[in-house]
Amino acid sequence: MPPIRGVRLATAEAGIRYRGRTDVLYVELDEGTQVAGVFTRSRCPSAPVDWCRAHLPGGAARAVVVNSGNANAFTGLKGREAVRLTAEIAAEAAGCRPEEVFLASTGVIGEPLDATKFRGVLADCAGRARPDSWLDAARAIMTTDTFPKIATRRVRLGEAEVAINGMAKGAGMIAPDMATMLSFVFTDAAIAAPVLQQLLAAGAEKSFNCVTVDGDTSTSDTLLLFATGKAGGPAVESADDPALQPFRQALDDLLVELAQLVARDGEGARKFVTVEVSGAESDRSAHRIAMSIANSPLVKTAIAGEDANWGRVVMAVGKAGEPADRDRLAISFGDVRVAVEGARDPAYSEEAASAVMKKDEIAVRVDLGLGGGKARVWTCDLTKAYVEINGDYRS
Amino acid sequence: MPPIRGVRLATAEAGIRYRGRTDVLYVELDEGTQVAGVFTRSRCPSAPVDWCRAHLPGGAARAVVVNSGNANAFTGLKGREAVRLTAEIAAEAAGCRPEEVFLASTGVIGEPLDATKFRGVLADCAGRARPDSWLDAARAIMTTDTFPKIATRRVRLGEAEVAINGMAKGAGMIAPDMATMLSFVFTDAAIAAPVLQQLLAAGAEKSFNCVTVDGDTSTSDTLLLFATGKAGGPAVESADDPALQPFRQALDDLLVELAQLVARDGEGARKFVTVEVSGAESDRSAHRIAMSIANSPLVKTAIAGEDANWGRVVMAVGKAGEPADRDRLAISFGDVRVAVEGARDPAYSEEAASAVMKKDEIAVRVDLGLGGGKARVWTCDLTKAYVEINGDYRS
Repeated sequence: MPPIRGVRLATAEAGIRYRGRTDVLYVELDEGTQVAGVFTRSRCPSAPVDWCRAHLPGGAARAVVVNSGNANAFTGLKGREAVRLTAEIAAEAAGCRPEEVFLASTGVIGEPLDATKFRGVLADCAGRARPDSWLDAARAIMTTDTFPKIATRRVRLGEAEVAINGMAKGAGMIAPDMATMLSFVFTDAAIAAPVLQQLLAAGAEKSFNCVTVDGDTSTSDTLLLFATGKAGGPAVESADDPALQPFRQALDDLLVELAQLVARDGEGARKFVTVEVSGAESDRSAHRIAMSIANSPLVKTAIAGEDANWGRVVMAVGKAGEPADRDRLAISFGDVRVAVEGARDPAYSEEAASAVMKKDEIAVRVDLGLGGGKARVWTCDLTKAYVEINGDYRS
Repeated sequence: MPPIRGVRLATAEAGIRYRGRTDVLYVELDEGTQVAGVFTRSRCPSAPVDWCRAHLPGGAARAVVVNSGNANAFTGLKGREAVRLTAEIAAEAAGCRPEEVFLASTGVIGEPLDATKFRGVLADCAGRARPDSWLDAARAIMTTDTFPKIATRRVRLGEAEVAINGMAKGAGMIAPDMATMLSFVFTDAAIAAPVLQQLLAAGAEKSFNCVTVDGDTSTSDTLLLFATGKAGGPAVESADDPALQPFRQALDDLLVELAQLVARDGEGARKFVTVEVSGAESDRSAHRIAMSIANSPLVKTAIAGEDANWGRVVMAVGKAGEPADRDRLAISFGDVRVAVEGARDPAYSEEAASAVMKKDEIAVRVDLGLGGGKARVWTCDLTKAYVEINGDYRS
C-alpha cells in the first residue's frame, strides 16, 4: 500500500477487551481534509454512528479513532459520554476540535466502553503516526476476521496523480442497509465533501450493499471516505465534472474489492459465492431475489455440503415475494445449467454439477425470463464453524 | 387420538424415496365432507399446491393423499401430470371424482415424482383404511422430523359433541407466509366450507404464521381442514354464529399446539424459544420485530451457545426496519431483565441470566416502550446439527 499524502496512521494496545494484540487505530489527517460517510440503516445505531452522523455535515475531518473489542452500541447515556470523551482525547492529540474527529467501534454490543483507556494512548499514537502502517491499521480493527482487508488504486484526477487506499473489517453480522461493518477509505484527491458524499453513496450501493454473510445488519456499520486534497489541483466541486470519471471508477472498484473481501472472510466460510439474477422485472426486483437466495440458510448449507440443490434456489426465489414465474426459471451453478423452464434440465449431469460445487468459488445464476432486470450480490456458505464462532463469542 | 366419524386412514410404503418406512398417507372421507385450505405464499408453489388451490372452491373433499420423500415442486409439466395421475388413482380407490381428492407432497424439490408408484398402493390403502391410525398417519408424512406431531380437542358445537384431530410435519424450510409445512386437521363437526375457510385462515394467522425455524418459506406449505359433518346437527352456515365460539377456540388452540410442535422439532434444535414483543406501535409492527429476532442467525446461535447476548437482540430489533427507540428498549430473558432504557439493567446478574439460558425453553421478551402493539412467535435455536442436516440432505 502506497502512502497517501496527508494521512498518518498508528495503532496501539488499549486493552479494551483483547489481550496481546492491537485494538485501537488512530489516523491523523492534514488540515483541509474532506469527509463523506454511509452508515447502517439499523433503527438502533451505535453511539459512534450517532456521533459521525451528527458531525458529517461539517464536511471536515482531522482524525479517526477506531477500536475493536467493544461496539459501544446499546450503551445508553454512558455510550454517548464515552464517544464524547474519546473525541476529546483524540482532538487534544491531533490538535483539532472534537467535531473533526470521526469514530467507529466494533465488537460486543451492550457493554459499556471505558473511554478513559484512550487517555495517553492516543497522544502516544499521534507521536508515532506514520504514512505507511496500512496493514497494521487493518489488523487493529479486526474482530472475528481471519485476515486484514486492504485495497489500493492509483488514478488520474484532472492534472493530478492520486491514490486511494481502503481498509475494511467484518466477517459476521453482515447484511446490507448497509453491509459494511467498518471500512475506511483515504485519498489525496482534492474533492469537496458534497461531491465525495455522492460518490460514496453511489459506490456503497454497488458494493457493500451487495454483500451479505448472515442477513444480520449491524448497529455499527460505518463507511467513511476521507480526501486530503494533498495531490494538488483545484478541488472538484461538482459530481458531474467529467474529470471525475476515472476516479469514480477506481473508487467503485476498490469498494467492490473490499466488500468482496468481507464476504470471502464470512464467519466460518469455506466458499465465496456470487449470486447473479437476470431476467427480472426490474433491477430492484432482481436485487431482492438475489438477496433472498444469498441469505437463505438452506441454500447456504447446501453450498457448504457441496450439494447442487437447485430446489432450494427455487424456494428462495419463491419466498422473495417478487414477480417470478416458476415455469420460466432457469438455474445454473457456474456454467452448468441444472434447470430450465421450471424443471430439471434434460441435459442435467449430476457429475458436472458436483464438480462445480467442489470449487472454492461458486456462481449461482438465476434467469427469471420475465424482463431485463439484473443484480449481482456476494455471500459465502453457512458452515458448522459459523455456529461455533457465534455460539460462543461473548463469553 | 379418538376416531373422527367419517374419517378413515391408511399408510403404505410406496418406495418414493425412503426405504423401510411408510411414505404415503391415504385418508378417505365420507360423502358431504367440507374442506378449507391455507397455502404457501411462495411465488413458486409446488404442483400439489396448485392442484389444491384449483379445487378448493368446490368445497367438497372425499380423499387426501400425502407422500413424503418428494415434494413434486419445480417439476414442470411432469409435475402437473404426476398430480393428475395421483388424483385419478385415488379417486378410483375412493369412488369419487379426482377434483374431490386433495394432495400434498413433501421432500426433495426439483426431482420428478413417479406417480405410477401409487397404482395398486392406494386401492390397497382404501381396503385397509381405519378410523384409528392417527399416529401411523403422522409418521408416514415425516421427512427430517424427529417425532410425529398430533393433537386433539373435544368440544361442543350447538347440540353436538364434536372432535378435532390434527397432524403436522415440518422441521426445516419453515417460515411463515404461511409456515406450516404440511398439516391436516379433521373434525366431524357440520360446518359449511366458506365458514370453515374463515376459521382456518384466522387460526393460521395466530399459529402457523407465528412460527419460524430458518426463515425459509417452503414451496409446499399446506394446511387443510376437513369437516365430515357426521357429528350431526344442522351445518353452521355463518362465521358469526355464536354457537361456533367454543369450536373456534378449540381449533385455534389445536393449531397453536401443532405449530409449536413444529418449532420444537426444528432441525437440529435443542431449545424451544418464545419471542414476545410488546410496546410496539402496532401488532403488525410487533410481529415483524418478533420475526426479525426469531430469524436472526446471531440471536439463534447465541441461544444455542446459552449466551445471554441481548446485544444481538438489539441488533435484530434495529434491522427490522420498524419504529424503535434504542433508549426506550427493555429486554428480558425469561423473567430476568437484562436491559432497560437502552442500556444494561443496573441490577443485571450474569449468573441469573445464564441460569435462564441453560433451560430447554426460553422466552425472549422485548418491550419497545412506544405503544400498545404486541406479538408472540415461536422458534428454536440454530445449532451445528442444523448445518449438518441441511448440508447433506439431497445426496
